[in-house]
Amino acid sequence: MRATVLSGPFDIHLDAVPEPDLREDTDAIVRVVAACVCGSDLWRYRGLSPVDGPTRMGHEFIGVVERTGSRVSTVTPGDFVVAPFTFSDGTCALCRLGVHTSCVNGGGWGGRDRQGHLADGAQGELIRVPWADGTLMPTPGEPPEELYPHLLALSDVFCTGHHAAVSAGVTAGSTVAVVGDGAVGLSAILAAGRMHADRIIAMSRHPDRQQLAREFGATDVVAERGKDGAARVHEIAGGIGADYVLECVGTGDAMDQAMRSARPGGRIGFVGLPHDVTLRPNVMFGLNIGVAGGVAPVRHYLSEFIDRVWEGSLRPGAVFDQTFPLDEVDAAYRAMHERRSVKAFLRV
Amino acid sequence: MRATVLSGPFDIHLDAVPEPDLREDTDAIVRVVAACVCGSDLWRYRGLSPVDGPTRMGHEFIGVVERTGSRVSTVTPGDFVVAPFTFSDGTCALCRLGVHTSCVNGGGWGGRDRQGHLADGAQGELIRVPWADGTLMPTPGEPPEELYPHLLALSDVFCTGHHAAVSAGVTAGSTVAVVGDGAVGLSAILAAGRMHADRIIAMSRHPDRQQLAREFGATDVVAERGKDGAARVHEIAGGIGADYVLECVGTGDAMDQAMRSARPGGRIGFVGLPHDVTLRPNVMFGLNIGVAGGVAPVRHYLSEFIDRVWEGSLRPGAVFDQTFPLDEVDAAYRAMHERRSVKAFLRV
Repeated sequence: MRATVLSGPFDIHLDAVPEPDLREDTDAIVRVVAACVCGSDLWRYRGLSPVDGPTRMGHEFIGVVERTGSRVSTVTPGDFVVAPFTFSDGTCALCRLGVHTSCVNGGGWGGRDRQGHLADGAQGELIRVPWADGTLMPTPGEPPEELYPHLLALSDVFCTGHHAAVSAGVTAGSTVAVVGDGAVGLSAILAAGRMHADRIIAMSRHPDRQQLAREFGATDVVAERGKDGAARVHEIAGGIGADYVLECVGTGDAMDQAMRSARPGGRIGFVGLPHDVTLRPNVMFGLNIGVAGGVAPVRHYLSEFIDRVWEGSLRPGAVFDQTFPLDEVDAAYRAMHERRSVKAFLRV
Repeated sequence: MRATVLSGPFDIHLDAVPEPDLREDTDAIVRVVAACVCGSDLWRYRGLSPVDGPTRMGHEFIGVVERTGSRVSTVTPGDFVVAPFTFSDGTCALCRLGVHTSCVNGGGWGGRDRQGHLADGAQGELIRVPWADGTLMPTPGEPPEELYPHLLALSDVFCTGHHAAVSAGVTAGSTVAVVGDGAVGLSAILAAGRMHADRIIAMSRHPDRQQLAREFGATDVVAERGKDGAARVHEIAGGIGADYVLECVGTGDAMDQAMRSARPGGRIGFVGLPHDVTLRPNVMFGLNIGVAGGVAPVRHYLSEFIDRVWEGSLRPGAVFDQTFPLDEVDAAYRAMHERRSVKAFLRV
């Protein structure tokens, strides 16, 4: 079969690789219908995060179950499924608490599972899914192709934006500022609206993304950054700053922007993998600004959101602004890297 | 009148100072009935935090209103009052949100108010209270002396422990670990119990404090520190760590202890003024551990807790294990410094 491999900075290609097989009786094999490129993939693509030799890429996918191990009971061959960007057994104490990303048997696509087997990357034709019962979530039926982007967005990006809002504890009637206008930031705007925030301030300098931000529910757009940006947020937010700030980038500048934009007593939800982020405990202490967030436990949120997508009340797939066939995965990465695409959809 | 002045490390004394007078028509003059020494006073007493010349000390007091300015309407001469450890106007946007410690007109005892007038320290005979309406909370009547310690504990220490629990978001049925067995840590134990935590783990090495911790509701005591202490907390907390950790010290070691003791998805409430505390965003991110807290907005909590003390259902004053007359304020500081006293009560 063919799968996406990153061999070094900007060296991404579709390789012929062995087909995956069931390794454990809790595994499933899924034929990938669609995958996508994540902002977090770009750190390694750009050489900003190290890769340890040729690496299978991709951690977001929807697909159809082909085969299941003998102990898999919640999905069967032919089921259409959405996968979270991490796998999890679904039964350990942390899964039961909704922190599937800290599952004692969990792991990430493209890495190794606890048994030492390769967990394939998602940007390929087939994928072995460890702990299929605890990982995959079937849809209510065979979805029309029109729903693919909305379902695929649940695999990571929408649930990650939602996790920022949940981690911050967004409440009805509040003012929320969102730092980052990538797919996660846009998703966080949509999530804050679903949680009935009153004012949603998108921090964005790109007209096309500002437009999408407004479509997703932003009531205000702030193009300024740094102190000027924070001053604009304060101005919009009653002169005191935003009740909640959702930090959806992961850089030190973005966290500083979030800290400056929050009001005393406010909360920051952060979901961008931190790169050179510093938190200042004395500032947090003096202003009573709390910080929570992390890697989103997508599986915890998946069931509800699949239902919402199915009934048509949630349409997070608009973050996909370009579609590529898997054959052109290199072009998809390039479009994301050059910021010509917010998020690239890969049709397998 | 006489008031406590710190002139340099370990140089604390009761000085004759001018009696305070009303400076603004929102002021009140209060005759202090009881004050106390705070763990945070010791940073300056020990020379670990700088003092800028002779400094009026003390920020916790109960007393009787002597005089009020023309615009004061909620307290009148003769009222018995509890004061928070910061003053606040009670009307600004942040006071209305319950973050009185960030009041736009607020400040701390012993410092200067916005008008540039000295705000006396609380370890003295009389004290000028800026923004009396927004700061002072009268008791339902003249309290019996037996209630003094319980009312005085509301001025800072109990509400600060409570704020740790509120900031962490302690829920019924949860497991809470408390780092720090000083008066704030002990208060946090009491607060966690009031919020119906199921297991409350006191981290303490001192038999007398362990005893008080149990009286305040601790179900378990862990004497070990560092990795061993965290391992014990994990063992008690279902093998995964505590749902909530209340960090009531303010040192880097204490925060590290808290971070190690929390479970993935857990929350740390921190109320110790941070000294050399470092937060690791990548650890917080990977484990979804949130951190919130800060300087406690006591005024926000005061009304409810005065009622609870009045009816006898809340008795936080047991943290006061030694009483000194104001004349012996130096002995009170020494007892706290040498850890012979958990918290020293000063009868004025």
